[in-house]
Amino acid sequence: MVSWINRRAARPEAPRQRPRVAPTELTRVDFTELVPEPVPFLGQAAYIQLVFFEGLALAVQTAPTLRAKEGLSAAAGVALRKHHALIAELRLQGVEPVDVMAPFAPATVRLESASRGGDWEELLLAIHVTSGMLDGYFSRLSNGLHADLARRVRAILDEAGSAAVLERELSLAIAEQPGLADRLALWGRSLVGDTLLIARSALRASDARGLEERVEPIFTELIADHTRRMDALGLTA
Amino acid sequence: MVSWINRRAARPEAPRQRPRVAPTELTRVDFTELVPEPVPFLGQAAYIQLVFFEGLALAVQTAPTLRAKEGLSAAAGVALRKHHALIAELRLQGVEPVDVMAPFAPATVRLESASRGGDWEELLLAIHVTSGMLDGYFSRLSNGLHADLARRVRAILDEAGSAAVLERELSLAIAEQPGLADRLALWGRSLVGDTLLIARSALRASDARGLEERVEPIFTELIADHTRRMDALGLTA
Repeated sequence: MVSWINRRAARPEAPRQRPRVAPTELTRVDFTELVPEPVPFLGQAAYIQLVFFEGLALAVQTAPTLRAKEGLSAAAGVALRKHHALIAELRLQGVEPVDVMAPFAPATVRLESASRGGDWEELLLAIHVTSGMLDGYFSRLSNGLHADLARRVRAILDEAGSAAVLERELSLAIAEQPGLADRLALWGRSLVGDTLLIARSALRASDARGLEERVEPIFTELIADHTRRMDALGLTA
Repeated sequence: MVSWINRRAARPEAPRQRPRVAPTELTRVDFTELVPEPVPFLGQAAYIQLVFFEGLALAVQTAPTLRAKEGLSAAAGVALRKHHALIAELRLQGVEPVDVMAPFAPATVRLESASRGGDWEELLLAIHVTSGMLDGYFSRLSNGLHADLARRVRAILDEAGSAAVLERELSLAIAEQPGLADRLALWGRSLVGDTLLIARSALRASDARGLEERVEPIFTELIADHTRRMDALGLTA
């Protein structure tokens, strides 16, 4: 589904001295070298937003307060808007969105089941962890699409979504319930593997050589983002 | 919450011969004579849209096909948009939406529980019946608000929502599953009472004399609409 194209083939071949940079910068990956196929890219991204919507809608239905319902329903609306905007892009590509999304259902449904926690707080953290990792990932991956489409898709995916309300509700719950922080820390850790599998599947169809090694730093970065997100809640990642 | 004001007080008092009209026209009620209080009206209407959204979101989550998910998720988006647009109107009135909606929670949640059927088809019919009756009711009731607000609220409530997709999915299911029509006919009938209670509660706070008798034709009309809706599915109302 994603192919590597060295867009810098014209780069001079003579080895150059490069300045030493901080380790985090060393691992930063140039996503524009990843060129996803537009149709499956849009299909997978659209399906994932549908799953975020379903998770947020479940969080609305089971919210303990009307205040929480309000914040979460707004976030559910954003995920749904992203989903439908990506569906509209698929139609522009002349394909039937349902057919394009179908192959992504099994893996995504697996992530969805794995992230349905025992209670409302675990559900919230699951959405926070998975959408936090995957929204950023797909947005950056979209840079490899052709310029017009890339701009539109980035505009769709970069709309601020559920992060603020999830962080607010989770922080309140953690402050009120002793022991919740420890349980959520474990729960958050258990979600990372499945989320990375989804991210990896977006690259699966590529037959480019050396993909594995080049992809590794992307996942390092996703995990670093995840750690920052957990830190913001006072949770050990 | 709603008061009756006779806006036609200047009407000539001499009895006139009126032409005979068909019975259905005789029972048609002039909703502009019902003047709801804007704040509780908006609060109840907003809460009801949130409940429709939750029902449609549950229908998305439990849909047997991706095609059904697509149609229902669009309908869920419309209900959510109506909810948030009504919330925005409440903020324009200078009140906190959560506080205004809270008193309507118990009755609405009761309707919600009563309308969670045993399976997906019963859920779909419940949303179809309740939103069919209440959307039209609140839209017509909004005519009694002051002109600017009435126009905006009508624009919000009259957006085509879930009716088309619910009718399509239900018709498909009824055609495929022998015996489903009989079960759904019974189920649809059982929902009317609870829905009328919600409609009646929108008029509850009125202290106008003779309300009961004047309200009766409204409910007759709501039930006639309901019968047409069931007929369209080939179901006995």
